Amino acid sequence: MHKLLILSKRAGEYRQLLETANLPEIEIHSATDATRASALGSDFEILYGEPRLIRDLLPKLQNLRWVQTTSAGIELLLDPNLRRDYRLTNARGVFGALMSEYVFAYLLLHERRIFERYKAQKEHRWDGSDTGSLRGKTIGLLGVGSIGSHLARTAKQFEMKVQGYTRGSQISSDVDIYFHPPELLAFAQGLDYLVSVLPNTTETQRIVNATLLNALPAHAIFINVGRGSAVDEPALVRALQEQRLAAAVLDVYQEEPLPKRHPFWRSKNLLLTFHTSAPSLPEDLAGLFIENYGRYLRGEKLNYEVDFVRGY
Amino acid sequence: MHKLLILSKRAGEYRQLLETANLPEIEIHSATDATRASALGSDFEILYGEPRLIRDLLPKLQNLRWVQTTSAGIELLLDPNLRRDYRLTNARGVFGALMSEYVFAYLLLHERRIFERYKAQKEHRWDGSDTGSLRGKTIGLLGVGSIGSHLARTAKQFEMKVQGYTRGSQISSDVDIYFHPPELLAFAQGLDYLVSVLPNTTETQRIVNATLLNALPAHAIFINVGRGSAVDEPALVRALQEQRLAAAVLDVYQEEPLPKRHPFWRSKNLLLTFHTSAPSLPEDLAGLFIENYGRYLRGEKLNYEVDFVRGY
Repeated sequence: MHKLLILSKRAGEYRQLLETANLPEIEIHSATDATRASALGSDFEILYGEPRLIRDLLPKLQNLRWVQTTSAGIELLLDPNLRRDYRLTNARGVFGALMSEYVFAYLLLHERRIFERYKAQKEHRWDGSDTGSLRGKTIGLLGVGSIGSHLARTAKQFEMKVQGYTRGSQISSDVDIYFHPPELLAFAQGLDYLVSVLPNTTETQRIVNATLLNALPAHAIFINVGRGSAVDEPALVRALQEQRLAAAVLDVYQEEPLPKRHPFWRSKNLLLTFHTSAPSLPEDLAGLFIENYGRYLRGEKLNYEVDFVRGY
Repeated sequence: MHKLLILSKRAGEYRQLLETANLPEIEIHSATDATRASALGSDFEILYGEPRLIRDLLPKLQNLRWVQTTSAGIELLLDPNLRRDYRLTNARGVFGALMSEYVFAYLLLHERRIFERYKAQKEHRWDGSDTGSLRGKTIGLLGVGSIGSHLARTAKQFEMKVQGYTRGSQISSDVDIYFHPPELLAFAQGLDYLVSVLPNTTETQRIVNATLLNALPAHAIFINVGRGSAVDEPALVRALQEQRLAAAVLDVYQEEPLPKRHPFWRSKNLLLTFHTSAPSLPEDLAGLFIENYGRYLRGEKLNYEVDFVRGY
């Protein structure tokens, strides 16, 4: 028997989904926080859940062989002071459509001037002026993994041009032009929209800095759905203040929840959401675990295994 | 030589695009209103422009053989008191991506609770609660022509289920289930979103009536980007008042501009736009004319020819 601990705020939902799947040779335990989990013992072989909760338990688990997270972000588990003697897999592949929803919701909000139309309605004013359109506009994707690829395909459905910036791989055929280091500034030129889906790694930290923001056209809009660490936040505040950037939409921040005194709360032309761009759907995430557990049992390569050094 | 009159508010833009195309055997004239057009003579063979302007000129044109409109809607030219001894082609095929922008802008605005998130931001309040998602939701398309087909493909990109209601044809493979008359109420059951892209014909008038609205789930949202004539407006006001429908988004109305005293201005859970869902892009529309002019010269079938009896 393989002893599994589900450690998640939504442990109940995940447990039900896993039990419904009738997985073989598994003993399922669950807890919603690390304290309760500790009371269940320390001989778990598999952990499934949220990095924040798993982290505290890591040192105690002498039989640990595999951790599957319910999130894409796993940087909390990459702390060099933590053990790395287990296989770590994260949630990928399920967020593409959800991230496309978020990114295109805000692109369309802007182009279709939805706030302005709503204002006209409130004033009982027929405003027949043309709106903008995504057609023919250029979107630049910082990072083209499974999420970036989905964004690229959605952009094509709206007849946009797509540029992609990646370290090397070119997995999406919906990207019209790829750029690689050191072509970051060339990539930024002429973009109408810049979207970061970058994970938090040593190479991505503050990649969206004053230099990159200055390379964008002044009418450009920046959207961050990756990690807050990718953004030099004071530089972004200044670019917005000085109107070197038309607007930004942020879902992630250096510190979350965003501190009360943070200048983002008072910045103009900035829309904030609250790490809510990809609502996690338990069915999807449980599906990832179920697929990977089959692979684990058969001794196969696991899906979405994280390289501790590379960071993704 | 074929004598062409461009009759449009944007005649200058269209003229420039057509002149750049160097069309053979054509003499191009242009006017921005019918009065100015009359002064240019009455021996035009081809008219290109807006139905509203063209209508007044129709009786005078003894050499008229072909009218290409810059709009999809041509009901003004279908008045039985008007002549029908010419070929009428309308603008189609170019509006799909634009209509997808509009429809999905508003679907996403709703699911992603953008107004609520914005309110939280204004109150400096971190609201990490989950949003909804389009994934797995069901969209019903009233009408599946070129626009409906584009909506269906966009819905699939967001991993939605798609139902289509058409008179008979089934041109889109992105529609999961087709319904035909008399299955309208069966079509409506279980929809999360109902979108009308219907043109104005005798068969579509007030098709969105109390019976259809009652057949929708109470959490459903109705969007009209077709023609205002498809909606029984008092029935829609009542359905919203009585919360038998969660919300509606309208771009077209029985009377446009929407009269000042119309109850829509004061209805709750109703978002209004102003016949602005598909901003006309002169390059696209000129492209349609250029393609069709080639066909006209070669004596071929014209694209998007309207059947005066059928009405589309």
